[in-house]
Amino acid sequence: MASANISESTVRRLSHYYRVLEEVEAEGKRMISSHRLAEREGITSAQVRKDLSYFGSFGRRGLGYNVAHLREEIRTILGLERRWRVAVVGAGNIGAALIAYRGFEKQGFDVVAVFDRDDARIGARVGGFTVQDVDALPATVAREKVDVGVIATPLRAAQEVADALVAAGVRGILNFAPRKLFVPPDVTLRTVDMTMEFESLSFALSQPRPARRPRPRA
Amino acid sequence: MASANISESTVRRLSHYYRVLEEVEAEGKRMISSHRLAEREGITSAQVRKDLSYFGSFGRRGLGYNVAHLREEIRTILGLERRWRVAVVGAGNIGAALIAYRGFEKQGFDVVAVFDRDDARIGARVGGFTVQDVDALPATVAREKVDVGVIATPLRAAQEVADALVAAGVRGILNFAPRKLFVPPDVTLRTVDMTMEFESLSFALSQPRPARRPRPRA
Repeated sequence: MASANISESTVRRLSHYYRVLEEVEAEGKRMISSHRLAEREGITSAQVRKDLSYFGSFGRRGLGYNVAHLREEIRTILGLERRWRVAVVGAGNIGAALIAYRGFEKQGFDVVAVFDRDDARIGARVGGFTVQDVDALPATVAREKVDVGVIATPLRAAQEVADALVAAGVRGILNFAPRKLFVPPDVTLRTVDMTMEFESLSFALSQPRPARRPRPRA
Repeated sequence: MASANISESTVRRLSHYYRVLEEVEAEGKRMISSHRLAEREGITSAQVRKDLSYFGSFGRRGLGYNVAHLREEIRTILGLERRWRVAVVGAGNIGAALIAYRGFEKQGFDVVAVFDRDDARIGARVGGFTVQDVDALPATVAREKVDVGVIATPLRAAQEVADALVAAGVRGILNFAPRKLFVPPDVTLRTVDMTMEFESLSFALSQPRPARRPRPRA
């Protein structure tokens, strides 16, 4: 499987197909059409067929794809049957919320260590973890064989923490700090910029609306 | 100010400038150059000057922009001095994490109600709120003058909840369910798709690396 050459947009489409397949499987359906797989995302069914043929999966004309089989196939391609060891750096608002967020685990990411550099937080318990001094990061990341670092620090510390995580040997970084980070090409970086979403929402809400629907009465 | 015509990408740049300005202000600097404002985001300083001149802010050659003044101006444009009333729908993993996440409040979003449709959750306390039956959503949203609905439900319920929020009169929706939603053009929708970020990270981590850096010893 030439999966190393898959573009990020293909991966995002596979992620979408996977969710549709989970949904359809829960509905008890055995087969699915490329049309249904394309639904809602503005994907053409030709694109679906092209994506899937690339992975060696071919629908049968008039019948479509076998749901369980295709779901398993995509699950393997996305690496969802594997588990990743995660260190969360920053035990403040976002960090604590992420540690509390069980979805993390459901997606195959197991938190194994939590760091902060604030004396008031070091030694405290957050979601079952004792917060470690960020100075211990290199040793702990190596010892605990951490795969992924989650950056939930204030903006200013983010690049320094990314550098420390990379030096300690992580292969991926999930960044929640609202800043563009630089990492070497062999480290995968994903950013979730909630601040930007909030600000963009706040901006849109602040605009006068030309025609306002009346608010219904309670 | 013709702010109603500002594109989403301009808003995202303003959001970036705002953060740089906060950082620079914390460093105690009074003036900032368009070059520094452009930093890290692959924005040219010409683009910065164009964006800011559009809002009537002009730097002084050789001196740059006044930090405090520009920060206040962007704060107003982004509507960050206003507060928005938020209803969270879905008191599961994501919902509970969001309610626990204090950053929400810091960004001007005050949670005023929490809903779920699961009998096991209705009536329970989550982060200081009593979870209400989703059937009470229309009345509560109208009575509490909710501006924004946060959707933290499973994928399948998301569109139905969005429809109910729109019918009840919200002006914005922040969607955490991994699904594209349809809302009328006068309702602002923003989506934070963490599942897709996780899956894309999982995919990347599953790929063999051509040249692997040795993991440092603990």
